Amino acid sequence: MIGHPAFRPEPWAVRETSFDQGFLAQSESIFALANGHLGLRGNLDEGEPRGLSGTYLNGVHESYPLEYGERGFGWPEDGQALISVPDGKVIRLLVEDEPFDVHRGTLERHERVLDLRAGLLKRDVRWRSEYGRAVKVHTERLVSFADRNLAAIRYEVEALEQPLRIAIQSNLVANQPEQGNGDDPRAGRSLGAALEPQLSVGHGLRVVLAHRTRRSGLALASGMEHHLEADGPADTLTHAEPDLGRVTISVALEPGTPLRLEKLLAYHWSSVQSIDWLRDQVDASLESALAQGFDGLAARQREFLDAFWQRADIEVDGDLEIQQALRFALFHVLQASARAEGRAIGAKGLTGPGYEGHAFWDTESFVLPVLTYALPQAARSALRWRHSTLPLARDRAEQLGLRGAAFPWRTIRGEECSAYWPAGAAAFHVNAAVALAAARYVAATGDSDFERDTGVDLLVESARLWLSLGHHEDGGSFRIDGVTGPDEYSAVVDNNVYTNLVAQSNLREAAAALRRQPDAAARLQVTPEEPGAWLAAAEAMFVPYDERLGVHPQDQDFCQHERWDFDHTPPEHYPLLLHYPYLQLYRKQVIKQPDLVLAVHVRGDAFTPEEKRRDFEYYEQLTVRDSSLAASTLAIVAAEVGHLDLAYDYLAEAALMDLEDLERNAADGLHIASLAGAVNAAIAGLGGFRDHGGVLSFAPRLPEGLDRLAFSITIRGARLHVEVLPDSATYGLTGDAALDIRHHGAPLHVSPGAPISRPIPLLPRLARPSQPRGRAPARRLASRPEPRDERGTA
Amino acid sequence: MIGHPAFRPEPWAVRETSFDQGFLAQSESIFALANGHLGLRGNLDEGEPRGLSGTYLNGVHESYPLEYGERGFGWPEDGQALISVPDGKVIRLLVEDEPFDVHRGTLERHERVLDLRAGLLKRDVRWRSEYGRAVKVHTERLVSFADRNLAAIRYEVEALEQPLRIAIQSNLVANQPEQGNGDDPRAGRSLGAALEPQLSVGHGLRVVLAHRTRRSGLALASGMEHHLEADGPADTLTHAEPDLGRVTISVALEPGTPLRLEKLLAYHWSSVQSIDWLRDQVDASLESALAQGFDGLAARQREFLDAFWQRADIEVDGDLEIQQALRFALFHVLQASARAEGRAIGAKGLTGPGYEGHAFWDTESFVLPVLTYALPQAARSALRWRHSTLPLARDRAEQLGLRGAAFPWRTIRGEECSAYWPAGAAAFHVNAAVALAAARYVAATGDSDFERDTGVDLLVESARLWLSLGHHEDGGSFRIDGVTGPDEYSAVVDNNVYTNLVAQSNLREAAAALRRQPDAAARLQVTPEEPGAWLAAAEAMFVPYDERLGVHPQDQDFCQHERWDFDHTPPEHYPLLLHYPYLQLYRKQVIKQPDLVLAVHVRGDAFTPEEKRRDFEYYEQLTVRDSSLAASTLAIVAAEVGHLDLAYDYLAEAALMDLEDLERNAADGLHIASLAGAVNAAIAGLGGFRDHGGVLSFAPRLPEGLDRLAFSITIRGARLHVEVLPDSATYGLTGDAALDIRHHGAPLHVSPGAPISRPIPLLPRLARPSQPRGRAPARRLASRPEPRDERGTA
Repeated sequence: MIGHPAFRPEPWAVRETSFDQGFLAQSESIFALANGHLGLRGNLDEGEPRGLSGTYLNGVHESYPLEYGERGFGWPEDGQALISVPDGKVIRLLVEDEPFDVHRGTLERHERVLDLRAGLLKRDVRWRSEYGRAVKVHTERLVSFADRNLAAIRYEVEALEQPLRIAIQSNLVANQPEQGNGDDPRAGRSLGAALEPQLSVGHGLRVVLAHRTRRSGLALASGMEHHLEADGPADTLTHAEPDLGRVTISVALEPGTPLRLEKLLAYHWSSVQSIDWLRDQVDASLESALAQGFDGLAARQREFLDAFWQRADIEVDGDLEIQQALRFALFHVLQASARAEGRAIGAKGLTGPGYEGHAFWDTESFVLPVLTYALPQAARSALRWRHSTLPLARDRAEQLGLRGAAFPWRTIRGEECSAYWPAGAAAFHVNAAVALAAARYVAATGDSDFERDTGVDLLVESARLWLSLGHHEDGGSFRIDGVTGPDEYSAVVDNNVYTNLVAQSNLREAAAALRRQPDAAARLQVTPEEPGAWLAAAEAMFVPYDERLGVHPQDQDFCQHERWDFDHTPPEHYPLLLHYPYLQLYRKQVIKQPDLVLAVHVRGDAFTPEEKRRDFEYYEQLTVRDSSLAASTLAIVAAEVGHLDLAYDYLAEAALMDLEDLERNAADGLHIASLAGAVNAAIAGLGGFRDHGGVLSFAPRLPEGLDRLAFSITIRGARLHVEVLPDSATYGLTGDAALDIRHHGAPLHVSPGAPISRPIPLLPRLARPSQPRGRAPARRLASRPEPRDERGTA
Repeated sequence: MIGHPAFRPEPWAVRETSFDQGFLAQSESIFALANGHLGLRGNLDEGEPRGLSGTYLNGVHESYPLEYGERGFGWPEDGQALISVPDGKVIRLLVEDEPFDVHRGTLERHERVLDLRAGLLKRDVRWRSEYGRAVKVHTERLVSFADRNLAAIRYEVEALEQPLRIAIQSNLVANQPEQGNGDDPRAGRSLGAALEPQLSVGHGLRVVLAHRTRRSGLALASGMEHHLEADGPADTLTHAEPDLGRVTISVALEPGTPLRLEKLLAYHWSSVQSIDWLRDQVDASLESALAQGFDGLAARQREFLDAFWQRADIEVDGDLEIQQALRFALFHVLQASARAEGRAIGAKGLTGPGYEGHAFWDTESFVLPVLTYALPQAARSALRWRHSTLPLARDRAEQLGLRGAAFPWRTIRGEECSAYWPAGAAAFHVNAAVALAAARYVAATGDSDFERDTGVDLLVESARLWLSLGHHEDGGSFRIDGVTGPDEYSAVVDNNVYTNLVAQSNLREAAAALRRQPDAAARLQVTPEEPGAWLAAAEAMFVPYDERLGVHPQDQDFCQHERWDFDHTPPEHYPLLLHYPYLQLYRKQVIKQPDLVLAVHVRGDAFTPEEKRRDFEYYEQLTVRDSSLAASTLAIVAAEVGHLDLAYDYLAEAALMDLEDLERNAADGLHIASLAGAVNAAIAGLGGFRDHGGVLSFAPRLPEGLDRLAFSITIRGARLHVEVLPDSATYGLTGDAALDIRHHGAPLHVSPGAPISRPIPLLPRLARPSQPRGRAPARRLASRPEPRDERGTA
């Protein structure tokens, strides 16, 4: 990548070819392995140096009292933070009397490769000690998609040049101290030693630990098992203490005959099961892992990923870096969600402690559109998690004096954890994101079981919320006052267009779902008047428009506000939220991330093409993209309104967000929604894919510099393959039934096994819109690096 | 008072005739003595039982880190809280082997009297122990207006029926523990033992302690000295330890010959002086006190108060309770401000720890109008304190990205201490309150020295703030967006009418002051363009008006919002802020305290009489008066627009706020601004006094039930005495020069020594406006208690 000289693009891997302490924490996020349930940051095997040594189990969190200098009614009492569970990644190596430490001696070779097809993180090191002893270390690591409780490490060390006695210490360590993260509100929170030891047992080459969280009361057991292959005799010692399990292996190595160690890790946790039961589960999982061995686990990993790539891959010809970044994005979206079953998909997945491990609206708004059309069962699972929190959301609505359900702005377990309500509880649009994600999933899959027992609940309870939140002014238009839209540089405004439009859809979809699932009415105690009231509110929904400027204001007052003084804002004052008070940001025309432009995307049916273009160009002058969520939406709408080069630039920004650490906080974990956004930027942006009203439409167009784009859409069990060339697009269908779609507005009937091509209409040339001073995106065509080589890594 | 059967009204005193543990904390506030510098809560001499044992020195505070669950740029790092200094009020009594404790034995007599003319708190107790021994205790307490560092206690104990050996322990005690105040955000904050002992010395009957605050780094010394008169021999023991000084006196008493003890207390503190110097000051003060004796101090106290009452007294005939309450109010306003010299006047004065001892905008908006026309030197001193914090306010403006100065929403020392910016930093109107209080002081006194070196600075720096805060929309009207007005049930709104109108005055007054003080321009680096820009902004100031409703909206969007559902708000859900989230309060039409109606009062020149009436009646339906600041403003505007009975009701509510504990938090201290508001309700409400543009105008009218109202206005060294009868008003002037005023709109020339009477025009009868359900004020005429007797207490 451009961002770091040690990285060069290749199509199916991310490869680091030299060691850089300054990029270490970022690389730990980039090289993190996870399956949606268990996550291991990409730490060096020997544990140090490190940025953050995270090992996470989705849902394992500690709670803590939220402090307020001044307190208000209904503000959450408790926060929740993802915590590190015992770290089993650590394998320390002593070469004769010298510890292998990349800081000492000479690192003659360093390479790490994240293999996107194999689902492995590999490392090759050749190290010469201060005293001159040389070893070669090769490791491979996986977190199993097939068995979500398991991770495994293959560790091989070989003496070079001379016989060497080495000692390996394989650790499982709890409550490792981490450095603080300063004042950045986006970083994680250190809660000290959150795990109380309950049990530690060692026998053979196995150690099992059990802990309980101090305040949130969760129980968890973790264990490690080892399989050793060495030519000579190996002395081993197994030791267990409350926060540490350690297996020590001492061997005399001859050059050419490496020591091979497989380390198997298992984790189980619960809020209700006993420590004893959890310990049994860990021992059982370790047996199962031992039976499969690393190779067996790796084979099933490959199998899982082959199936995924077949459904989800995006091919890009002409820009290897973007090709790589999109696959990296898909891989991490998969890692964040595949086996989350019953738990949330956090903003950082399981790659780091940023945002305290919380899930936000962007899971439903950015990640679920990807999963719905690539891995629908993961989308369903994420929505089922939201559904499992409905009782909490109903209580929250009641506490706020509202009807229906109010989902939290940020949470791990379902309770609202936002300590700043203007940018938290007031952002009610999260409820539409959840409800409309359910509606989209149902439309895309035809999963009426889900709609009947889950989807309709989410739609009805959120429709009730909107009805109680808004009011008909003098019996006329329906207003939603005093809420916060997606743009976090505005808050608590009247008639945010995005919010009003997604609420409108929500109200309509709720009525429609009830018509399809009439039996749910009784369970949800829907009165005969309710659906009519939802439809009436939707019909009367107020959507402000500024006649003078010919654009939609972000909220009814937005365009009257003073413009931010971009010309006197120095580059080092971005992101603005770290250098200016909300007090100023909120009262001026300055936008952190698309809000009205996001409405243009998700409610494209509510805007004319001309309005879309004018709106996009107006807000383009005001949007500073201080959020990782910004670029992908801008790419999508830029492409739609005809600014294709700009769309390409924004697609690149979204896709490279973490690989190039553009937000400078990838150290805390990857931006899963931005990665998903990059996928959306390709499919919905360059591919022009929309699903308004359940109709799949495409308006593909390639920017200069790209030769070909291909992607698939999983729809009702079938797979629609779209291949875009500069002048034409081809639609192919795998499945049983034909599909009616639209290509650049024209209806197209696609039959299975009969690909059909259509020309791409010419695009009139438009003047490139301007951004705030210094905030123009990097020009993609000018900044593309030379490709390294095109070989795969598998 | 109605509020408590132990209190009955009388004109010059507040008298409690029985002991009620449940009203103890409130009585400590009501009976607090202070002089603006030193304050002693009205605790029982023996120290227990107690609500809170406060002894305060204005400005002596501890700082503490402000915590935020989520943090934003520019939010204050530190809070400040008034802390208790060593408590010298405690005098414990042992009767033979039994401690005098009102909880034990029988309290045969209990009376406490706050004498408003003498400035003394007196107590008479007759107590019989469990064993049957009887004593009489008489105490008197004062905090000297003449010597602000001194307090004194006269303590007399007499054996009844039989000889008794008694022991007295007179204590000076630091770091007494206090109970917490729960979750009420209006209460104080307990910081534990904030004082670090530095020195403790005892000799003779004197003990001096010195302490330093842990975090804010202030030094203070406190001392007690005693003068003893007893018939028989007295054994004494003086003891000093780090947090305790104690003088023990043991005497055998014969019935009829009481023991007389005078206890003298002195306090000095500083942020720069040494402990040694402060200790010397305390010893010197104690010598001075000893020289004067209690009687000497009491005589000077009376002298000071006689002068005060001559200038400030308000006479009310026909409602003894209101007569008493207004004098109580004046007395406590005096106690909060008289000798504050260089320090703030806190919202609770020095009567308790509520609001952490902070000063808010209400000092300038409610207290200074009283002081300006009654005790102008105290108004000047308060404004000089603000001026002393200008460097901090300039820094704060810069931090917020604004020009000029931004005074804090709440503070002790000058730094912003508000931890919730929507109701804190966003309430910029505090700056106009400060600036316009300076302009009012100058207009009322002609103090051009003050204007030249203090007033013009406050006006210019706040004018600069307004100009940078607002903007000319498309070069036209001047808007002030995203700020919070006085009503705390709205926040961060566009074009709050109150704010825009006071900003308009501020901008004009700044230009006018500069014209009068042209020399200040260089010192303040005023460019030639600035005053013109202020006047242009003032001229173009946007004042929204709702044509449809025929009223001014509180802010430009206010009247479009849904009305609060008052009909389904149960009485126990008031105050609303403790039962509903801001999220709901802000987005609906519901008002905590007058905002638009306050604009009608303070900017009466900007409204027609008809607009005033319509505005008042519209907002009357929405105002729940969850703030102690509400009633007085409503009284003033109700009187002006012709709702005279309602004005009387609101005057009573304001006047009785603390005596009847209407807000249920008088335990934490009195509401000084509400007490000042009661005075304003009489003078500006029933008296119809206004000073728009420096012209004194009156429109007096008595409601049914009052026979006479008389008050004085101190103006440019002269005293204008106004006597209002049901049908006429008489204006008399003491001083050198004649005065042009207005009576019900007509010009009136008043010459010294020549009182002039004018009839009061008839008032058309109006329908009484309605309030939110359950929130109508008590009807004064129906609820007046029978008077007790009319004797004075001196």
